[in-house]
Amino acid sequence: MKSFCLFENGIIADIVCEASSLDGVKRIAGTVSEDLSLVTGKKPNVTNGLEDCRNGNVVIVATLGQSALMDSLMERRLLDAKDIVGKRECYLMKLVGTPFPEFPNIKQALLIIGSDKRGTIYGMFRLSELCGVSPLVFWGDAIPEKKEKVRLEFANDIVSKEPSVKYRGFFINDEWPAFGKWCAERYGDVNAKAYDKVFELVLRLKGNYMWPAMWNSSFWQDGPDLENARLADEYGVVIGTSHHEPLCRAGVEWQRQYKNYGDDNAWSFVSNSDAITEFWKGGIQRSKGLENVITIGMRGENDSHLMGKDATLQNNIVVLKKAITVQNQLIKDIVNPDLREVPRMFAIYKEVEDFFFGVDGSEGLRNWNGIDDVILLLSDDNHGNLRAIPQPTDKPHSGGYGIYYHFDYHGAPVSYEWLNHTNLVKAWEQLTMAYEHGIREMWIVNVGDIKGNEYPLSFFMNLAYDYEKWGVSNLDSAAEYTRQWLDAQFGNAVSAEQKTQIHGILDAYTWWSAVRIPESLNPSVFKNNFHEIENAHAAIVNVMSKTDTLRKELPQQCLSAYESMVYYPVMAFFNSMLVNLEAGMNHIHADRGTLVANQFSASLLEKISLDRHYVDEFHKFLGGKWNHMMESAHMCFRSWDDHNWTYPIAQTVAPIPYAKIVVSFRGDNAYNIGHHWQDRTPICNSEMTRPDVSEVSFDIDSRGDVDFSFAITCDKPWLSFSQTHGVSCLKDQPRTSIKAICDRVKLDGGDVALVQIDFAFTNGEKKQAFLNVRAGNNDYSHCPGAFLESQNYLCIPADKYNSKVDVEGTGWSVVPRLGRIGNAIKSFPVTKNWENPSNRPYVQYDFIVSETREYVVSFYLSPRNPRIKGGTIEGCFSVNDNQPELFDIVQPNYYAEWVDKEWNYGVTNNIRKVNVAASFNQGLNSLRFYAADPNAILEKIVIHPKDIPLAATHLAPPESYRVPLK
Amino acid sequence: MKSFCLFENGIIADIVCEASSLDGVKRIAGTVSEDLSLVTGKKPNVTNGLEDCRNGNVVIVATLGQSALMDSLMERRLLDAKDIVGKRECYLMKLVGTPFPEFPNIKQALLIIGSDKRGTIYGMFRLSELCGVSPLVFWGDAIPEKKEKVRLEFANDIVSKEPSVKYRGFFINDEWPAFGKWCAERYGDVNAKAYDKVFELVLRLKGNYMWPAMWNSSFWQDGPDLENARLADEYGVVIGTSHHEPLCRAGVEWQRQYKNYGDDNAWSFVSNSDAITEFWKGGIQRSKGLENVITIGMRGENDSHLMGKDATLQNNIVVLKKAITVQNQLIKDIVNPDLREVPRMFAIYKEVEDFFFGVDGSEGLRNWNGIDDVILLLSDDNHGNLRAIPQPTDKPHSGGYGIYYHFDYHGAPVSYEWLNHTNLVKAWEQLTMAYEHGIREMWIVNVGDIKGNEYPLSFFMNLAYDYEKWGVSNLDSAAEYTRQWLDAQFGNAVSAEQKTQIHGILDAYTWWSAVRIPESLNPSVFKNNFHEIENAHAAIVNVMSKTDTLRKELPQQCLSAYESMVYYPVMAFFNSMLVNLEAGMNHIHADRGTLVANQFSASLLEKISLDRHYVDEFHKFLGGKWNHMMESAHMCFRSWDDHNWTYPIAQTVAPIPYAKIVVSFRGDNAYNIGHHWQDRTPICNSEMTRPDVSEVSFDIDSRGDVDFSFAITCDKPWLSFSQTHGVSCLKDQPRTSIKAICDRVKLDGGDVALVQIDFAFTNGEKKQAFLNVRAGNNDYSHCPGAFLESQNYLCIPADKYNSKVDVEGTGWSVVPRLGRIGNAIKSFPVTKNWENPSNRPYVQYDFIVSETREYVVSFYLSPRNPRIKGGTIEGCFSVNDNQPELFDIVQPNYYAEWVDKEWNYGVTNNIRKVNVAASFNQGLNSLRFYAADPNAILEKIVIHPKDIPLAATHLAPPESYRVPLK
Repeated sequence: MKSFCLFENGIIADIVCEASSLDGVKRIAGTVSEDLSLVTGKKPNVTNGLEDCRNGNVVIVATLGQSALMDSLMERRLLDAKDIVGKRECYLMKLVGTPFPEFPNIKQALLIIGSDKRGTIYGMFRLSELCGVSPLVFWGDAIPEKKEKVRLEFANDIVSKEPSVKYRGFFINDEWPAFGKWCAERYGDVNAKAYDKVFELVLRLKGNYMWPAMWNSSFWQDGPDLENARLADEYGVVIGTSHHEPLCRAGVEWQRQYKNYGDDNAWSFVSNSDAITEFWKGGIQRSKGLENVITIGMRGENDSHLMGKDATLQNNIVVLKKAITVQNQLIKDIVNPDLREVPRMFAIYKEVEDFFFGVDGSEGLRNWNGIDDVILLLSDDNHGNLRAIPQPTDKPHSGGYGIYYHFDYHGAPVSYEWLNHTNLVKAWEQLTMAYEHGIREMWIVNVGDIKGNEYPLSFFMNLAYDYEKWGVSNLDSAAEYTRQWLDAQFGNAVSAEQKTQIHGILDAYTWWSAVRIPESLNPSVFKNNFHEIENAHAAIVNVMSKTDTLRKELPQQCLSAYESMVYYPVMAFFNSMLVNLEAGMNHIHADRGTLVANQFSASLLEKISLDRHYVDEFHKFLGGKWNHMMESAHMCFRSWDDHNWTYPIAQTVAPIPYAKIVVSFRGDNAYNIGHHWQDRTPICNSEMTRPDVSEVSFDIDSRGDVDFSFAITCDKPWLSFSQTHGVSCLKDQPRTSIKAICDRVKLDGGDVALVQIDFAFTNGEKKQAFLNVRAGNNDYSHCPGAFLESQNYLCIPADKYNSKVDVEGTGWSVVPRLGRIGNAIKSFPVTKNWENPSNRPYVQYDFIVSETREYVVSFYLSPRNPRIKGGTIEGCFSVNDNQPELFDIVQPNYYAEWVDKEWNYGVTNNIRKVNVAASFNQGLNSLRFYAADPNAILEKIVIHPKDIPLAATHLAPPESYRVPLK
Repeated sequence: MKSFCLFENGIIADIVCEASSLDGVKRIAGTVSEDLSLVTGKKPNVTNGLEDCRNGNVVIVATLGQSALMDSLMERRLLDAKDIVGKRECYLMKLVGTPFPEFPNIKQALLIIGSDKRGTIYGMFRLSELCGVSPLVFWGDAIPEKKEKVRLEFANDIVSKEPSVKYRGFFINDEWPAFGKWCAERYGDVNAKAYDKVFELVLRLKGNYMWPAMWNSSFWQDGPDLENARLADEYGVVIGTSHHEPLCRAGVEWQRQYKNYGDDNAWSFVSNSDAITEFWKGGIQRSKGLENVITIGMRGENDSHLMGKDATLQNNIVVLKKAITVQNQLIKDIVNPDLREVPRMFAIYKEVEDFFFGVDGSEGLRNWNGIDDVILLLSDDNHGNLRAIPQPTDKPHSGGYGIYYHFDYHGAPVSYEWLNHTNLVKAWEQLTMAYEHGIREMWIVNVGDIKGNEYPLSFFMNLAYDYEKWGVSNLDSAAEYTRQWLDAQFGNAVSAEQKTQIHGILDAYTWWSAVRIPESLNPSVFKNNFHEIENAHAAIVNVMSKTDTLRKELPQQCLSAYESMVYYPVMAFFNSMLVNLEAGMNHIHADRGTLVANQFSASLLEKISLDRHYVDEFHKFLGGKWNHMMESAHMCFRSWDDHNWTYPIAQTVAPIPYAKIVVSFRGDNAYNIGHHWQDRTPICNSEMTRPDVSEVSFDIDSRGDVDFSFAITCDKPWLSFSQTHGVSCLKDQPRTSIKAICDRVKLDGGDVALVQIDFAFTNGEKKQAFLNVRAGNNDYSHCPGAFLESQNYLCIPADKYNSKVDVEGTGWSVVPRLGRIGNAIKSFPVTKNWENPSNRPYVQYDFIVSETREYVVSFYLSPRNPRIKGGTIEGCFSVNDNQPELFDIVQPNYYAEWVDKEWNYGVTNNIRKVNVAASFNQGLNSLRFYAADPNAILEKIVIHPKDIPLAATHLAPPESYRVPLK
C-alpha cells in the first residue's frame, strides 16, 4: 500500500499533534491545516490524539522523544527511526496501515516524524508542498490549485537529509520605505504579527536562522516587549543580529537606552566601556534561554569605523580585543561557562577584515584565541562577489566559517533596494565557491524587504539546505531550480510552454537587471554605437510584450502569483530601463539638434508616467496587500543612496528656421549636417564587411523646419536603396529612414561605395550629403570556425572557443548564463589554483585579422575579488606559438571597497575589462586563455587595432561573424 | 547778408550744375535735388546754367577748373578759392549776392565749390545735411523732417578740411545670405543698381574708397560687364580689392576664367605662374583708366596659405616676392612706368604678417624694395584689436600704412555677421592708436552687409575724415559723435530726452553685444553665481521695455529710422540673449531636478519663437525693403561659422513621486536637497557681510509633486524673514521665495545665523533643511574710500582708483565705456611706452582684506595684442610698500590667431585675465598699477584668497562695497 488518501469525497484526513508536542510544532500543524484547506476547501481538524479523529486516514506529526504514539509504534516495531535519530533537522515520512489496535477505525496513518522541532516542521511543510502549496503561498501570492481529491503516493518512506549548511537564513535590511511602511500599515509596527509571516517563511524555505530588521526597530522591544523573540523561539527560528549589533542588542537600542547606563551616549569602548558593558549584559540576560547565535565584536554606529579616523589599525585591534574579551566573559557568566556550547558569531565585514587579517605589520585577530569556537562570518563585497575566503592551506578554524551575502544593499557605490537583480547563476557560482572553501557553518543573505526577492531567496535557501543537489557539481543548477520553482508556484494549471515562457522572462529580467541595476542606470550608460541602445530597446520591448501577453493568457488562479512575482517587477523594471534608453536617444538626438528628438521626448515622458503607474498598480494589487512594497526610489541615483535622484530630463528641440538636414547611419554616433566647403569627409558604415550583414539603414533627420525633397545616387552597382527619391513632411514625420542593400553577387572582394544625397529645400536652397558604405565579400571558407575581424574589431564570446584542452580531468567548463550577458567559462575544480604554467588547461580561439599590426586584447571578466586578502587574480594567455604570458586581472593594492575605482567599476558595470597588448598577423591567428586563478571567469574577448579606438559601448560590440564550421 | 532762403512759400532755389561739370557731380546734384524734395516736398530744378533759373535764389555747384561761372567770379574777385585750391577733397560754401550782372534776377547764390570731384560732392551732401537729410536717408530709413521753410544761416564761409586719412572706405563682405539675397531679390544681382546705393553711401559718409562684395560676385563682370566699375569711377569712388584679390581681379574670377589662360586651375604661382600672370594682366588692362588702388601680393584661395602645409616660410616668401615682382612689372608696363604714381596696396593680413616680418631667421619682405611706395595695409585681429603696428623707432615706409578693420567677420573662433556688436569706444581707442602710430594712408572696414552696421560705420568714416575732431584728444568722442549722429537721424521731432533714451539703448545694445557676441553665446556662458544671469536678465528686460515704450511714443515720421536702426536690431539681439540666459536657468534648474525648470523651459520656447518673430517682422518692415538683411544665423554656433548651430535645448523635468525639496540662495549655484544623515552642512550665504546689503533671498523648490507646509526658525535675533510659515501649491506655483532681512542695529560685528526650515509633507513625511546666513556690521569709517573684501573676494573697477600720479603730464586717464562692461583706464600718450620703472605714472587702489594671507590678484584687461610682432604686453604693479613688479600680460609666443588659446579666449570673451600672486595684511592695503605698455588697458581688478576658489562668472563678481569717502 503506497498511497495515502488525504482528501476525497469531501472528507479530509485529520492531523494528530499530541499535547506533548512542542509549541512550534503545534503552531505549524495549524498552519499546514490552513494550507490543506486552500487546496481542498476543507480544513483538517488538528487533534491532540487519536480519540478525536473522525476519519479513517490520519496524519500524525511528532518529534522524536516528544511523542507517546511514536514511542508506541517503535516499541511495536512498526516504526524504525534510526535514519533520523540524533540528526539535525531531519524528518521521516512513513505510511502505516491500521497502526493502532486500540483505534481500529484508523485505517491509515501518515507519520511525519522529526528528529527535532525544525525537522518535524520541515516534514509538515513537506506535506503542504506535496499537496501543491508553495512555500511562497503568502509572500508570492502563489494560490495553490484547488483539488477534488488528494492522494499522495509513497513508493518509499521519505527520509530527509541533514541540511548542508548549519545556520541558513536571511536578514531583513534596508527595510525603509518598503517593508517598514508595509508593516506599519498592515500590522501597526515591525512586530510579532509581522514576524509571524516572516518566521513561517524561514521555516517553509527550510531555513532556521534570521536577522531581524533593525533600521528603526528593536526586535526585543517592539514585539511588543519580548514577543518577537518569544515567537521566534516558539517557531524554532534562531535569532542573530547583524554584524554591528553585538550581544543580542538591536542597533537602535543604545541611543534609546544609554541613559539607563550613564550620561554618555558615545558608542565608544574607549571612553564609555563600563556603560556599554552593562548595556550588553542587559541584552544577554534578556535573551537567555532563547535560541540565538550571539554576535560578538564591535563596530561604530551607522556602519562607521570603531574609532576616529586618526586611530591606527593597531589601536582599533586593541579596543576590539578588549570588547570581545568582555563579551566572552559576559556570556560565560550569564549563559554558559563553557563558551564552546554557546553559538557565537564574529562578522569579518568591511574594515573588520583589516582588523582580522591585520595589515601593515599589525597582527590581526586571526590567530587570537578570543575567537576560538566562534563562527567567523565572512562577507561578499555587498555585490555578490566573495572577498577573502579560507584557503586549503589555512590553519583550520575551530568555529568554522559563514558567509554574509547580499541580494539587497544600502551603500556605495550605489544601493539596490527596489527589486531583485540577482542572476541566480552568479550567486550559485560564488556560493558554491564559498561552500567548496569550507564556508558551511552559516549562510545569511540580506534580502531587503523580502518581497521582490522571493525567487533568489528560495534558491539561496535550497542551495544551503541541499548542496548535494544544487551545488558545484550541477552546472545547470539555477535553471533546473527555476523549473522546479515555477512548478511550485504555478502547479499544473500553467502549461509547460507557458512555464518555459515565464522562465525566459525571469531569465531576461534578472539578466538585464544585473547588467546595470536600475538605481545606477542613467541615460548615458548605454551607447548608440553598434546599435546598442536600439538593440537593447527592441529586446526589452519584446520581453515586455511577452510578459503582458502571458498575463492575458494565464488562468485566473495563477494570476496572483504571476502578477506578484513576475508581471509587476518585470514590467516596472523594464520600463525603468526604457526610461533611460529613450532618454539616452532623446539626449543624443537633442544634442544633434534634430526634430526626431521630440518624438523620443514624448515617449520618454510617457514611460516616466508608466513608472508611477506600475508602482501604483502593484500597490493596489490584491486589495492593497503589498502597498508600499515597491516604494523604494529606483532610478538615476546621483549618489550612493536614494537621497539624490531625479527622472531623466526630457529635452525638446526647437526647429531652426533654416534648411538643415542631419544624416546618420542607424546605430552610430557619427552624423553629418551636410557638405561643408572645409570638410567633405563622408560618414562611413562598414557593417556590411560582415558576411552576415547585407543591409544597413541611414536616417535623414532635420534641424530645421524647411521641408525638402532628396535624391540618392551611388557610384557602385552592388548597392541599392529602399528608396532613391523622397519628399519630407517634417511636421508629421521628422525622420526618413532608408535601407542600403548590398547585392553580394555583384561584389568582388572588398569595396567602398560613395553615396550622394542631393537635397532641394522648399526655400530654394540646395545641399548635399555624402556617405561611404563599405562592404566585403571575401572567401574565408579555408578558416572554418574562425571569427572574422570587421569594423576594426573582434568580439568573441568566451564559450565559443575553437578547442579546449583539459589536464587530468580539470579545466574550463562553460557555465550557462554566468556572464553579464551570455555564458561564461570557469575553471574547475574551483579550489584549484594552477601553479605550473607548462601544464595549464586552456581554451583556444581562432580568428582572422585584416592587417598585421599591434592590437589591444580586452578580456571581459566577471568582476570577482582575489581569494586572498591583499592578493591578486592571475590570468594567463598566449598568442599563436608564443609562450604563455601571465597578467594580473586586478591592479596591485586592489581593495574590494568603494575607495577603489576598479572595484567600483566592476560592481557597477558587472564586468572587469583587462587589456593586454598583442601582435597578430594578417589572416588566421589563435589566442589561448589558460586556467590560472579559479576566480578568473571569462565572458568575452574583444580585440581592436591599437591605433584605431573602439567606439564606446556599455556591453561590448556585437559578437563577430564566425566562419561556418565545415 | 548771412542767410540763404532755400525754400519758402512753395518756391525752392534751383541748382545750377554747368554742362562742363564732371559726370559724378551732375549725378549727385540730382541726388541732392531729391534730398531737398524730401524736406520741402518740392524738387529743385537742376539746370546747366543760369539761363534756366526760374527763381532769385540759386545753388551753384562747381569744381575748381571745371566751371566758367566760378572762373568768372574769381576774375571779378567775388570769389577767392585759395583755402581749397590744390587741396584733396575740399569744398567751400559761400553765399554771394547778385553775383552775375548778366542775370540780375538772381539775387543770391549759394556757391558750393570743390577742390576736386569728391570735394564738390562732399559739399553738395553737406547742403543736404544742413537741410536735415541724414547720410543714412536710404540705409537707415532716416526720413527727414518736412519743413515749410528752409533758410540756411552762414555767419561765415564754410571751408572744409582735407580728410585726415587718404583712403577711407568699407568692404562689403561675408555678404551671404543677407546682403547677397537682398541684392538678388531687389536688384537681380550684386550689380550697378545695387552699387548705386552703395557708392552714394560711401560719398555721403565722406568716404572715397570701397572693396566690393566678392563671395560670389565678380565686380568687373556682374555690373553687368564693367558697369559697376564705370559707375564707381563716375561717382568718384576709388575701388580696391580685398587682401587676396590682386590686380583688380575678383576672387571668383580665376575659377570662372582659368580656361582662358591654360588647362590648370591651380592658384599656384609655383606651378601655374604663366597662366596667372596673364590673368592678372587682363585684370589690370581692364581697369586701366579707372580710379583704383591696386592690390598686390598673393594668397591661397579661400583665405588659405599660399603654399602647401609642408612649405617653409622661406619658400613662401620667395614665391611671394616673385609674384609681386611680376605684378609690379605688369603695372609698369600697362598703367604707368613710374610705379610711384600708381596707388598700390599690399595687405599684411594673417600669415602674410609672417612673410612680411620674417620669423625664425627668415628675412621677410619688410626691407625689400619691391614694396617701396606701396601702402602697407596692416590689419586688426579680425576682432578690432590691432596686431603689429609701426613703432616710432621703425624706419619710415615710403608708401605709408593703412589698416583693415572689422565690424563683421567670417572666421575663427567664431563669425559675427548678424548685427552690429561694435563698441564705438573700443573702435575709437584702437583706431586712434593706429592713427597715432602713423597709420593714415588707408582705413578700410569690413562692414558685412552694411545694413546693421550703419552706426559704427558712420563713426568710422567720420573719424577717418576728421581725426582732429574725433581723434585721440577727445576722450568723449564716441558719446559726442553718437549725440550728433542721433540728431542727424532723428532731427527735432524727437525730444532731447528721447534722444538720450535712444543713446542709452544704443549704449546698452553695443555694450552687451560686445560682451559676448550672439553667435558665440550659449546657455552656459553666463553663470548663476553672484546673481549674474538674474542681473543680466533684469537689465536686458529693462532695456527691451524702454525700447518698446519708445516705439510707442516716437512721432510717426521718426519710426522708420528708429525701427530700422534701433528697435529691430536691439530687440532681436536682446531676445537672443534672453534665449541663452533662460536656457541657462532652465538647464541649471533641470540639473537640480526642480519643477521650476519647466517655467524657464516654457519661457525659453517663447523667446525662441520671438527670435523668428523679430527677424520676420524686420523682413516685412517697410514693405519688405530689407527682406533677408537679418537672415544670418546668429545663435549658439558650435563651430566657427553658421554651418553648425541649434537653438538651445529646452529641458523638461518630470516630477518624482516623492517628497523632496530643494533649497537654494538666489543667485548661487549651491543647493540643498534636505538634511541627510551623512551630511548636514548647511548652504551658506555671505552677501550681507557687505554693509550695503541687508536682504538676501532663498528659494524653496521641489523635485517631487508632494505638497508641503514649512516653518522657518532662526537662532539669531538680527535675522527676520518675509514669511516664516507657508504652504506649497506646486501645481500652480512650483517655487516659494523667501527674503531674509538683516536688522543691522541688532548686529554687533560679524555673525552667522543658522536657519532651520522644517517641512511637513502631505504624505506624512517630514524633512529639514539648514541654511547659514552670514552678516557683518563692522565699522570701516577709518578707511574712507577703501574697497571691502567680502564673500571672499574684492572686485574693484579700474576707474575707481583712490589716487593717481602722473609724470610730466602723462599717465592714466579714464576712458568712459571702454571696458567690456564699464569704464577702463588707458595710459596717454598712446605712443609712449614707459621704460623707466622708477618713474612710471600710476593709479592706486585701497582695500581692506579680512585676513593676512596669500591672494590671487586678477587684472581684467582689454584683450589687446602686442604692438610689436612676437612681442609681449608689459604690465606693472606694486603692493603696499613693495617694489613694482613687471609681469607679462600675454604668454611668450602669443600669436593673435585662432591657433592661440589665449587669443581665442580674449576675443571670444572680450577680456584677458592675468593673475599675479600677492600677500596682503589684515586690514588696509594698497595696490598700484603703473603705466607700462600703452596696450595695457585695465578694466577691473578681482582679488581672492589663494586657497578659496572664486565661484565662476562670465563677467566678474559684483563690484565690492566701498567705504564712503568722508
